[in-house]
Amino acid sequence: MAVYTEIEDDDLAAFVAAYDIGEIVACKGIAEGVENSNYLLQTGRGLYILTLYEKRVQPADLPFFLGLMEHLAQRAIPCPLPVHGRDGQALRRLAGRPAAIVTFLRGVWPKRPTPAQCGEVGAALARLHLAGADFAMQRPNDLSVAGWRRVLDGCGTRADEVAPGLQAALEEEYADLAGRWPDDLPAGVIHADLFPDNVFFLGPELSGLIDFYFACTDLLAYDLAVCLNAWCFEPTREFNITKARRLLGGYDAVRRFSAAELAALPLLARGAALRFLLTRLYDWLNQVDGALVKPKNPLEYLHKLRFHQRVTGPGAYGLDA
Amino acid sequence: MAVYTEIEDDDLAAFVAAYDIGEIVACKGIAEGVENSNYLLQTGRGLYILTLYEKRVQPADLPFFLGLMEHLAQRAIPCPLPVHGRDGQALRRLAGRPAAIVTFLRGVWPKRPTPAQCGEVGAALARLHLAGADFAMQRPNDLSVAGWRRVLDGCGTRADEVAPGLQAALEEEYADLAGRWPDDLPAGVIHADLFPDNVFFLGPELSGLIDFYFACTDLLAYDLAVCLNAWCFEPTREFNITKARRLLGGYDAVRRFSAAELAALPLLARGAALRFLLTRLYDWLNQVDGALVKPKNPLEYLHKLRFHQRVTGPGAYGLDA
Repeated sequence: MAVYTEIEDDDLAAFVAAYDIGEIVACKGIAEGVENSNYLLQTGRGLYILTLYEKRVQPADLPFFLGLMEHLAQRAIPCPLPVHGRDGQALRRLAGRPAAIVTFLRGVWPKRPTPAQCGEVGAALARLHLAGADFAMQRPNDLSVAGWRRVLDGCGTRADEVAPGLQAALEEEYADLAGRWPDDLPAGVIHADLFPDNVFFLGPELSGLIDFYFACTDLLAYDLAVCLNAWCFEPTREFNITKARRLLGGYDAVRRFSAAELAALPLLARGAALRFLLTRLYDWLNQVDGALVKPKNPLEYLHKLRFHQRVTGPGAYGLDA
Repeated sequence: MAVYTEIEDDDLAAFVAAYDIGEIVACKGIAEGVENSNYLLQTGRGLYILTLYEKRVQPADLPFFLGLMEHLAQRAIPCPLPVHGRDGQALRRLAGRPAAIVTFLRGVWPKRPTPAQCGEVGAALARLHLAGADFAMQRPNDLSVAGWRRVLDGCGTRADEVAPGLQAALEEEYADLAGRWPDDLPAGVIHADLFPDNVFFLGPELSGLIDFYFACTDLLAYDLAVCLNAWCFEPTREFNITKARRLLGGYDAVRRFSAAELAALPLLARGAALRFLLTRLYDWLNQVDGALVKPKNPLEYLHKLRFHQRVTGPGAYGLDA
């Protein structure tokens, strides 16, 4: 959860008055989203999410994020729909920060995803990829190969503080991936951060996809690799091949992946593991005193990286190669 | 805001099924209440607050707190009403902790209270005191004179780390207050923590009083002294006598305070300042690494204490002595 920027009553009232959503009934900071301050806003018209974009989000990227959510929501992807003000604008300022109101999505994120939920999330990711195909804007993935190098450099020589030998392992992995990273696979809009806490379910049904603030233009199969890491390892660290099969099968049933995508999956999964390993390492080494966010242990992702390094083909993910 | 205990999906579903409130639609951790984990729970029936009681709350006190809220809500005090399960119980367990569901209150807490809001809160406090008069349960105030001694001892000799000379000033103030603390003023149920973030307004109207987890049996005028400190100082540290006059006037119009209560007010205000100064000092000196709660600066309350030490009579609070 995020820093909670305190909003003055009058500022909030003036902000909400710019929309045709009724009077404020309640507004509570919620523990959702690591990068921004989120509030559950109740008005006479219903429930909304009010987001104040904190410093980690580039203001120049906000039109991409908001435009993408609108594009996807219009194509029946269950994602938040940015609400436009009476002046037509979806993005304005509040408490000195860029701010937007989006629709509230029903559902609860799964603390322990089931195989069936993995299947649902695979299918939803494929639908997101298909719906994003005609989205006009582009945003390079600043946390792909070049970004990993920057984050790795940003950690200096301190990786070994977290685990002996980590620095050398990261450099070696980076060099290998950078030399072999594919550029000829299908690309388009990806979510890039579809962890379980960004996916809501209502009973068995997937009811919402949220937090599009890492979305970008990149290899579609890389998005799937992120999900493989985020959804298919047990808290006890075992890789659950049943969940992987359901995730990949759910995806493939909606958007058939090519033989090239399939063959690249182990490499993409290593890249996806390295990406979260590096950003978690950076946050771990740069903990801010008094911050409200407790950094996640980077070693969870070292373990995932090691798993994919040992994989010899997509059969390890439960697929017929 | 609190630690957010993570609740397993199945545990939450089973918990909610014990109530006649419909199916879970959403459940989000909210930034409300420092001592407990609070979730906004949406069901088919509407909005509720789900509270998990964390370690600072004594389980033995929960029947008092929940019973009091129910007693007050039945007497038209706008406070959360504990919801009883199908078995009649309002208190059960979830994720290894005592837990309860209460009704959701509309409104927003005032970030910068106005004089009119101070008047409303004074009147609401008086109504709470009157409505509590026939509440059968008792709970001693564990943060009154004997409690201050314990907290002061718990700080050891480290007060001077926060401000030079603080240790001696606290001992002196404690000795003076302990020797003169009144025991002959009207007593009853008090809220004991009615800060602005525990009071909701909808437009000009006071719509909710929350967080009864410091409520106890003590001097009614002490509760007013807590409010005087919490509502009538500006962020720039000036005492706003207009707000004090409205707070006290709002109270007096509903429950007339006696000449003895009026005369004791400066002393009670010093006690109320010492109480929050001491607990904030303790929390400041005992910051938990990685805790989600950022401790409040104790010196704000040293300043308030100094103000009341200089007061010669209730006229300083805008009243005719």
